[in-house]
Amino acid sequence: MVDTNTPLPAQMNAIGFAEPGGPNVLTPQQVDIPEIGPQDVLIAVAYAGVNRPDCLQRAGAYPPPPGASPILGLEVAGEVVGVGEDVPREILGTRVAALTPGGGYAQYCAAPWRHCLPVEGSLDLKHAAALPETLFTVWHNVFERGCARDGERLLVHGGTSGIGTMAIMLAKAFDIEVIVTCGDDEKCEAARKVGADLAINYKEQDFVEAVKAHTDGAGVNVVLDMVSGDYVPRNLKCLAEDGRHVTIAALGGAKAELVMPVIMMRRLVLTGSTLRPRSDAFKAALADEIAENAWPLFTAGQCAPVMDRTFPLDDAGEAHARMEAGEHIGKIVLKVGA
Amino acid sequence: MVDTNTPLPAQMNAIGFAEPGGPNVLTPQQVDIPEIGPQDVLIAVAYAGVNRPDCLQRAGAYPPPPGASPILGLEVAGEVVGVGEDVPREILGTRVAALTPGGGYAQYCAAPWRHCLPVEGSLDLKHAAALPETLFTVWHNVFERGCARDGERLLVHGGTSGIGTMAIMLAKAFDIEVIVTCGDDEKCEAARKVGADLAINYKEQDFVEAVKAHTDGAGVNVVLDMVSGDYVPRNLKCLAEDGRHVTIAALGGAKAELVMPVIMMRRLVLTGSTLRPRSDAFKAALADEIAENAWPLFTAGQCAPVMDRTFPLDDAGEAHARMEAGEHIGKIVLKVGA
Repeated sequence: MVDTNTPLPAQMNAIGFAEPGGPNVLTPQQVDIPEIGPQDVLIAVAYAGVNRPDCLQRAGAYPPPPGASPILGLEVAGEVVGVGEDVPREILGTRVAALTPGGGYAQYCAAPWRHCLPVEGSLDLKHAAALPETLFTVWHNVFERGCARDGERLLVHGGTSGIGTMAIMLAKAFDIEVIVTCGDDEKCEAARKVGADLAINYKEQDFVEAVKAHTDGAGVNVVLDMVSGDYVPRNLKCLAEDGRHVTIAALGGAKAELVMPVIMMRRLVLTGSTLRPRSDAFKAALADEIAENAWPLFTAGQCAPVMDRTFPLDDAGEAHARMEAGEHIGKIVLKVGA
Repeated sequence: MVDTNTPLPAQMNAIGFAEPGGPNVLTPQQVDIPEIGPQDVLIAVAYAGVNRPDCLQRAGAYPPPPGASPILGLEVAGEVVGVGEDVPREILGTRVAALTPGGGYAQYCAAPWRHCLPVEGSLDLKHAAALPETLFTVWHNVFERGCARDGERLLVHGGTSGIGTMAIMLAKAFDIEVIVTCGDDEKCEAARKVGADLAINYKEQDFVEAVKAHTDGAGVNVVLDMVSGDYVPRNLKCLAEDGRHVTIAALGGAKAELVMPVIMMRRLVLTGSTLRPRSDAFKAALADEIAENAWPLFTAGQCAPVMDRTFPLDDAGEAHARMEAGEHIGKIVLKVGA
């Protein structure tokens, strides 16, 4: 049984693609509004965030998990217009940001109610839609998996990406020194404005040398890496003893050659994770952690996501092209409703 | 100030080597008895354990840390005949097993008193000398670093080595299923007698296939690896989701090629450590953990180290040759005093 405040249409606007391919395969279409389970809410989407995995899924390289919506989109913000039978009724009519199991590029999106966070205080729907995917990813990988602690140092590649800017903000909020790499001086400047203690233009400087110089040879305690390939041995050279290397993507190539005695003698830890395939229970626990520790930074206006451009939903293909060109600084979002 | 029960000679028998090389470089010599610091005990060595790192040090591949004795030997058992000024006097005259900073292949050996464990109950000095190095190594790497828990599964290579037999015993004592690999059927049989749930003859069977078959495809939760090289990607194939790979040596080659998305998508953890360079404080804390949780298994006779052969101190070269030939099953010890 679904409880709603307002009568809902049978169909909605969404972005689909007939075959995997480049950004131009994305086309507006009319589809049925999603059904929701007993633990789900139905959200009238105001804005949907665009993320790297959306591009991979569109290209056919990252199929959705079994049971997930075939529609792209891992995060949204909007108003709750329907609730499943196990969901507290008070949430109906409230504004939330949600980590979704897919389906964000649409007028209506289903998500487990425990994966929602309230849009309140100084946070608006556009900024809220830009938060869940990078916030959940960075929180889990930097703090829970990478065990970053105050007084430590963090290295993040892609300092102006959604992940990079989120990592900078959270690191500074928890008294962690943060070093980032970027592909040009303009992005380095942008990263420093977000709060990076050091931004390295990796096209002009060897980042290993730059990290060593900045830290007087001590290195960093955690690397958050989305490059992989030949960055891995270079990242390990940046790590201090007992350092942690956390992989969240492999944009630079899957294979890495490691020297195992280095791991052993310097007691390094290599790990990594992907968010989407995790259980609903895991994501709910993570959402609780974030609601307690990080979300108030954003609702109180102490942190605000770095926003790149906003595209209308129908122009999702242009949004993907911009992300894949690496032109963006911060988050790209799609405007869906209002 | 050193406090002693008995007058001590100025010199002692020890094993030395003029130049690094094969087992035959090891020769008996007369050297001064070691000086001890305020936190140290002086032990009249009854037995000294032989370990793989001793062979590497003898070959010139593993230089002792700064300040350590140039004499080989990382573990001994014997009587405490001298104590430094900060050491509780009650320990004088007691029998102890000690993790040493080197210097075990000698009549007298210095060790921090907090790295000593009491030789009592059904434990004798010969068996006690065979315990510290493998017990400290396995305890830290399997339980503390690898986070092995009851009900989980552990894979260990070299099932009949000192490390392998210790890993089997501790795993079984803590309700962990343990799978080992060995180089022949006789060793497989020996490993099963120690308690291995499955012993794989790696010369006749692909261990990845054997692990998969034995665990119905589920894999193991922890791999304790001393091989490295091309074993690493094979070990990772044996790991269940959230599995931990702990490297303690690289007998099969230093370099390993990893597929980073595997680490990320299956949330694996790769780490490792070496014991000798750790701080005295770390080793003392580890000794306390072991005294509380594992040492009673040995003093009560519930576990007993698997013993290979005992050589007189003067025949240390023969002991090394046997270890390097891989002929041994369990621990090799040197008889020093009595």
